[in-house]
Amino acid sequence: MSLPVTGVYCASATPVLADLSPNLPAFTAHCRWLIGEGCDGVALLGTTGEANSFSSAERKAILEAALAGGLAPGQLLPGTGTANIPETVDLTRHALAQGVTRVVMLPPFYYKGVSDDGLYAAYSRTIEAIGDARLQVILYHIPQVSGVAISHDLIDRLRNAFPQTVVGIKDSAGKLDNMQAMIARFADFSVLAGADPLLLPLMKMGGAGCITATSNLVGRDLALVYRGANDPAQADAVAAAQARIEAFRNLSNSYVQLPAIKGMIRYLTGDAGWSRMRPPQVDLTAAERADLRAKLVTIGATVQGD
Amino acid sequence: MSLPVTGVYCASATPVLADLSPNLPAFTAHCRWLIGEGCDGVALLGTTGEANSFSSAERKAILEAALAGGLAPGQLLPGTGTANIPETVDLTRHALAQGVTRVVMLPPFYYKGVSDDGLYAAYSRTIEAIGDARLQVILYHIPQVSGVAISHDLIDRLRNAFPQTVVGIKDSAGKLDNMQAMIARFADFSVLAGADPLLLPLMKMGGAGCITATSNLVGRDLALVYRGANDPAQADAVAAAQARIEAFRNLSNSYVQLPAIKGMIRYLTGDAGWSRMRPPQVDLTAAERADLRAKLVTIGATVQGD
Repeated sequence: MSLPVTGVYCASATPVLADLSPNLPAFTAHCRWLIGEGCDGVALLGTTGEANSFSSAERKAILEAALAGGLAPGQLLPGTGTANIPETVDLTRHALAQGVTRVVMLPPFYYKGVSDDGLYAAYSRTIEAIGDARLQVILYHIPQVSGVAISHDLIDRLRNAFPQTVVGIKDSAGKLDNMQAMIARFADFSVLAGADPLLLPLMKMGGAGCITATSNLVGRDLALVYRGANDPAQADAVAAAQARIEAFRNLSNSYVQLPAIKGMIRYLTGDAGWSRMRPPQVDLTAAERADLRAKLVTIGATVQGD
Repeated sequence: MSLPVTGVYCASATPVLADLSPNLPAFTAHCRWLIGEGCDGVALLGTTGEANSFSSAERKAILEAALAGGLAPGQLLPGTGTANIPETVDLTRHALAQGVTRVVMLPPFYYKGVSDDGLYAAYSRTIEAIGDARLQVILYHIPQVSGVAISHDLIDRLRNAFPQTVVGIKDSAGKLDNMQAMIARFADFSVLAGADPLLLPLMKMGGAGCITATSNLVGRDLALVYRGANDPAQADAVAAAQARIEAFRNLSNSYVQLPAIKGMIRYLTGDAGWSRMRPPQVDLTAAERADLRAKLVTIGATVQGD
């Protein structure tokens, strides 16, 4: 058995300038910092990255900036799913043209209650239209946001049709039993946790790694958990890392999560611009930010700036 | 009191060719037929029109085809809302460049549970970025699909900030009391029903008209209801039209609605290509289509083709 995609990938946040355009230098600096912290790669342009709040042109510029900023194509897992097939094809082809062969792909997410037949048609037409044997697709199951779940039967059909292409899933629904069932049913299929605290139990049951939001802050701890989860000699270090992961995760989830993640990066970097959100996301209030800053100190972070 | 947008607008379906690209000649022929049936205009590229399953480039081509096909700019209410601000701005500017000044605008629909502050920021930045005094925006409330509701407080804030621009709402949630409350609260604001059977009660309480799916089939009846709703002399004709509207609506809703609407157009026109759907929507099964065809006859339609 060998898993096609393994490791700790940060669902990186995307900083923006005052005019809300992507702040590419700050973004690439953050990507490099994440790799230095021990992340295996950066899953840019996901839900945490506000991908669907950017245009296709902006998404391409963000991916190109990461490459120009020193990230290797193999370190990047860009999100390329949109509500429609042609733009998903276009974004994925753009990634492939840059040498980036692995993408995280949302199902089309405007209509709700769509059938597995409809999702199969969408994914299969997309993959066929891309028409590139190098492509590796990680499906994206985040029904609480997208409104569209990825069923196990859909995965089975897609794997049978595209065994070299449909290689894994990012499961952000937060239910360990769903991940366990996919590991049991699908050999050589990478099940990646979308919620940080679940990386540890997932690794104990044969999971492939994670694509998570809190790794914007505690990538070092997630890397330690990933590598040490099944090593009794590292049990104490893993437990300490897991405790830090949970502390940061619980803190971000005590506010609206996305601005809280950006707010934390703001206080770790001292760059107030990190707090800016693309609408319809909004920044925390000044009172919430002050509260967040104080609580970051309590959980052991070194903060900068106001 | 004067309502900025009034009348019966068809939420037109969008036919596609075998390769799933828009069938522009069939689309424009359908638009012209709708006007001939008595629709005041065509609200192309809405939920029934599978707008979010098309790329921006395809959406522009569809709007341009309607104009080239003989529709007047004032007869068109294109949907221009996407999940992100820059592409919504781009589609709306494109419409304005063609002389089409009224658009139906979804809120950004990827994130769920977003605040009114976030939606206000999204709509206000969009309107400011478009920067065209001719623009008239009809907000689009269809929370069962978009996952994002338009609250009355949000409408109030937007109207205060953009009194000449935010002129109405398409309410597709199907609740008459919500429409009644908006009519009571907002003067000179067009409340348009998104569900066909509600046009009649809405017109009795001061509504502005409708943007509906069943008008793809019974535009003539909706036009009669619109014009006669408050005229006692037309009560019998209105009741007969309302009965036909309800019969077609109930039939479409006994299947998945969008392919049922396209299937009905297929049997009224005899063009089998009308049944094709863009994924993630899928066509009815052959058995469902045969059933639909038989039931269309029962409710008085003249059908063509198999």
